[in-house]
Amino acid sequence: MRVTLKDIAKHTGLSASTVSLVLNGKQVRVSASTKEKVLHAANKLNYRPNQLAVGLVTNRTKTIGMIVPDVSNFFFAEVVKSAQAKCKENYYNMILCNTNDDPDNDVEYINLLLDRGVDGILLSIAANAAGNRGAECYRIMKDISKPLVLIDRDSPDVPVPSVMADHELGGYIATKHLLDLGHVRVGCITGPLSLQSSKQRLFGYIRALQEYKITFDPSLVEEGSFQLDTVPAGFRRLLEKKITAVFAQNDLIAYGVYKQVMQMKLRMPQDISLVGYDNHFFTELLEIPLTTMSQPTYQLGEAAVDILLSMIEAGNDQAPESILYVPALVNRKSSGPIQAINL
Amino acid sequence: MRVTLKDIAKHTGLSASTVSLVLNGKQVRVSASTKEKVLHAANKLNYRPNQLAVGLVTNRTKTIGMIVPDVSNFFFAEVVKSAQAKCKENYYNMILCNTNDDPDNDVEYINLLLDRGVDGILLSIAANAAGNRGAECYRIMKDISKPLVLIDRDSPDVPVPSVMADHELGGYIATKHLLDLGHVRVGCITGPLSLQSSKQRLFGYIRALQEYKITFDPSLVEEGSFQLDTVPAGFRRLLEKKITAVFAQNDLIAYGVYKQVMQMKLRMPQDISLVGYDNHFFTELLEIPLTTMSQPTYQLGEAAVDILLSMIEAGNDQAPESILYVPALVNRKSSGPIQAINL
Repeated sequence: MRVTLKDIAKHTGLSASTVSLVLNGKQVRVSASTKEKVLHAANKLNYRPNQLAVGLVTNRTKTIGMIVPDVSNFFFAEVVKSAQAKCKENYYNMILCNTNDDPDNDVEYINLLLDRGVDGILLSIAANAAGNRGAECYRIMKDISKPLVLIDRDSPDVPVPSVMADHELGGYIATKHLLDLGHVRVGCITGPLSLQSSKQRLFGYIRALQEYKITFDPSLVEEGSFQLDTVPAGFRRLLEKKITAVFAQNDLIAYGVYKQVMQMKLRMPQDISLVGYDNHFFTELLEIPLTTMSQPTYQLGEAAVDILLSMIEAGNDQAPESILYVPALVNRKSSGPIQAINL
Repeated sequence: MRVTLKDIAKHTGLSASTVSLVLNGKQVRVSASTKEKVLHAANKLNYRPNQLAVGLVTNRTKTIGMIVPDVSNFFFAEVVKSAQAKCKENYYNMILCNTNDDPDNDVEYINLLLDRGVDGILLSIAANAAGNRGAECYRIMKDISKPLVLIDRDSPDVPVPSVMADHELGGYIATKHLLDLGHVRVGCITGPLSLQSSKQRLFGYIRALQEYKITFDPSLVEEGSFQLDTVPAGFRRLLEKKITAVFAQNDLIAYGVYKQVMQMKLRMPQDISLVGYDNHFFTELLEIPLTTMSQPTYQLGEAAVDILLSMIEAGNDQAPESILYVPALVNRKSSGPIQAINL
């Protein structure tokens, strides 16, 4: 059983209220020798204050919650690790929830984390066909006056600071790279379009096409998920449309395309050029190392924690500015000039 | 601000104690119409009980904690996802902590999770050169009479149920596969040897050698970490020892070896045969698809939750049996017969 104040009182022969005064740092009316006696006993008996009770009184737990859609996605795993390191630096703990991209879980975990007394929450909104519950998450956090910061995925319904890389610019750079290589029929396999990040990358793709005076053809866009193995049918439809290049909105989608290309014995980049997104470590281990977009994952996690902690410490409603990083193209071997036969 | 019992009392004109009786399900002395009035107001005002307070009274939160060493390691990410799905099935929530393989974090997160009122904990022990803190975790959980279940990594100091695949057998099968192909000088790059899982895989390697009457040569064993990019120096030392095959104790180590082999323009499997461990999805995407050991990750997570919940529900000291799964060889292209020149 847990050691209580009473146990320490019994052990030292002091009253429970004296023990309480010492252990709560209110030793004004307690002698040095009594104080030492209590601390010695507390240490010996391995006393730990009941944080549930402490949390009720102080309303501060030095713990933040983080909610991500998929820990098995490299991008989020990296962001989690950097956020956690930053928490540790600041003597905060982090507890993590994984929504499996189910929007209902966002709300459930927000409530769960608040119930467990976190001081604030980092949220990367879940997405699927049912849309997102960002607005509801925001309302819950606002009602209880706890700060919320969005990572990677923002939403117009959630007016709080966000930390992310510029998805529109990333989509633009990736597509422009393929257009610069002479491709005209460029397919795009998106993430869930209920997500701002997917939508923005698609808008970047469209902006690049327009800049090159290429009419946007919606039939060259396939909506996918950000998970592996949802790619084949969409990619086959794109091939029927005579595309010569694909912009895959994350590396997991790109891996699915890569696998299909290999199975169909097509040549990369001669038959199909491919650009992914995230610069997953595996992209450079492939036989044809993958051209991809790199996001500053480590900075994302660190900056999000910095912002959240500043909001917790300030304890007021004046929200810090959002941060938008610039993604960069990592040019490898999976993308190349369009072949004469396709011109 | 959070809606309290007082707000509902004010809204309904009832006393706070009546409201409390209704919302805590103790309606014996309350009329049906009063009950309805309270529930209606609670719903309208979006009242949610303060779980910190509820947890203090009921001592049960329907939440479990899970502590893993590295969410960015595919194996743990998969186990986390399956454990979480199983929790959901049983109307439990899960909160997750990532230790970054720092043993001090095991103890810190055990305390943190208990402070947040979890009903039990799944732990995969952290490891680094400083050894593990399993015994301390065990003592803390025992003192407070909350159940603990180990996943993947057990420890003789922690006498609680564990769920894992047989690491010794896995090491044996992987090594025997290479010996069957005629290799005699087989290197082994281990995980941290402070971990039972690494040690057991090494013992399996030694058992296979002995079965083939090959004297165990400690200089063919390199201790690594289970993370990427710690491989190159160790692998170069093994090459100097004229090995023709490597058993890498997880796929991340195998990727490091693979990358080195490609950079050195060696041929695989003609110059170097390689067997990994975990059957990471990427192993089959490589130009030379990786031979590796497959563990039933999904069953591991599910079974661990089953055991933990049964311990929570039973609420007694009679611990269920541990579960040991059998790993299987996935034979692909990175391993092949020893070449005549090396015989």
